[in-house]
Amino acid sequence: MRIVLLGSGNVATQLALALKAIGEEIVQVYSPNLVNAEALARLVEAVAINNLSQVEQQADLYIISVKDDAIGDVAKGLNGVSGLVVHTSGTTDISILSGQVKRAGVFYPLQTFSKGRNVSFKHIPLCLEAEEQDLILLQQLADKLSSKVYELDGEKRKVLHLAAVFACNFPNHLYALANQILQQHNLDFDIVRPLIAETADKVMVNLPDNVQTGPAIRGDERTMDKHLTMLSNLPELQEIYQTLSNSIKITHK
Amino acid sequence: MRIVLLGSGNVATQLALALKAIGEEIVQVYSPNLVNAEALARLVEAVAINNLSQVEQQADLYIISVKDDAIGDVAKGLNGVSGLVVHTSGTTDISILSGQVKRAGVFYPLQTFSKGRNVSFKHIPLCLEAEEQDLILLQQLADKLSSKVYELDGEKRKVLHLAAVFACNFPNHLYALANQILQQHNLDFDIVRPLIAETADKVMVNLPDNVQTGPAIRGDERTMDKHLTMLSNLPELQEIYQTLSNSIKITHK
Repeated sequence: MRIVLLGSGNVATQLALALKAIGEEIVQVYSPNLVNAEALARLVEAVAINNLSQVEQQADLYIISVKDDAIGDVAKGLNGVSGLVVHTSGTTDISILSGQVKRAGVFYPLQTFSKGRNVSFKHIPLCLEAEEQDLILLQQLADKLSSKVYELDGEKRKVLHLAAVFACNFPNHLYALANQILQQHNLDFDIVRPLIAETADKVMVNLPDNVQTGPAIRGDERTMDKHLTMLSNLPELQEIYQTLSNSIKITHK
Repeated sequence: MRIVLLGSGNVATQLALALKAIGEEIVQVYSPNLVNAEALARLVEAVAINNLSQVEQQADLYIISVKDDAIGDVAKGLNGVSGLVVHTSGTTDISILSGQVKRAGVFYPLQTFSKGRNVSFKHIPLCLEAEEQDLILLQQLADKLSSKVYELDGEKRKVLHLAAVFACNFPNHLYALANQILQQHNLDFDIVRPLIAETADKVMVNLPDNVQTGPAIRGDERTMDKHLTMLSNLPELQEIYQTLSNSIKITHK
């Protein structure tokens, strides 16, 4: 498959490397910033471009992997192509493309991508949306990348993206707050790392409701009061502690 | 070392198995409920007792691993022994023991223990507190169990316990809320498991502040508004979404 990649951020980079690794041909990498386009193009032996008028018109697949706000503008620049055009966004409707291009789809990898951290696509859920033949095309590609391929419509994809904020972005921020508490007392973050690993590991085989631990689920008001007192110099954390503890109590009552 | 274990819950069970595995001798397991004492005693070839008057007086170490509220009462029953008496609680002061027994200490394993899930003590941080010779004794035992042994006073141990609520109990509850959102739309929890694993894995080598992702840190108000609208039938989750998103924005501004 001859692929044009539009974007050069974390998702675009990881996806480009994964596609290259399974033997797909990335013909061009587009970014409005040519330096960024070149950096990624070099990694996957593609041609770097920074103007949508330069886009190769005969590719099989165009992957738009840019900030949500910019998808529409990039799609406009692809209105002449006959290949399939997909975006990689969890929250953006497929209609942002289908108004602009002949064949539209979505190729949403459900994962958290950070600069400088390579991820294996093998176990990344890939969520696809497209019409009939194009869906088959995307499925064939996705199956080569990952063992977890889902067909999801736009509504379900948006629900999944929302759930991902609760499953990933918020837990990571709570790790950061734990670190803030530790630092205030000259304790190293390293001491809670095994706990974080085990907490995530437990829900690989259990549902989280079945393995909840801690003072809130035990109804241990004394410990919770002590904790709230300890947080009196961090009112923002105190509020979070209260809100989440109440939610645990409500869920398990 | 001849050890008497007082308690038969999750922590007591995992600790007993780990101690047995490194060749320590557990002479007795105490629980007010004899059936519980017997179940654990059988696993580690100990004698089950349900009355503190039956406690062997000549053991080297007495480990009190019961609910925080019950530690004081159990300690009272040990006031004749000359061996070292420790509790395993993160939030309880050593003084609850030192008022009752000659030699007091703390042996706090920082981990989340759930029924039916065996954990390896190899990488569990063990947090110790005791006076001189007794501290050395605990360190020797702890070093055999784990590669992560810390000496921490009561204040730091309590801070650590509070941080653990943020690093473990709250993230697990957020996994549960993610599942609640998914279930409402007939999506399986399995789809977010790789994301949870990667989120935890990332902070094994990074600090969480450096790998935060999601709409809040991007300042993506449009996506956050969409998410809040989607949560309008779950006001409790809406509040949590708002509180944590604000906290991410404040932390990273």
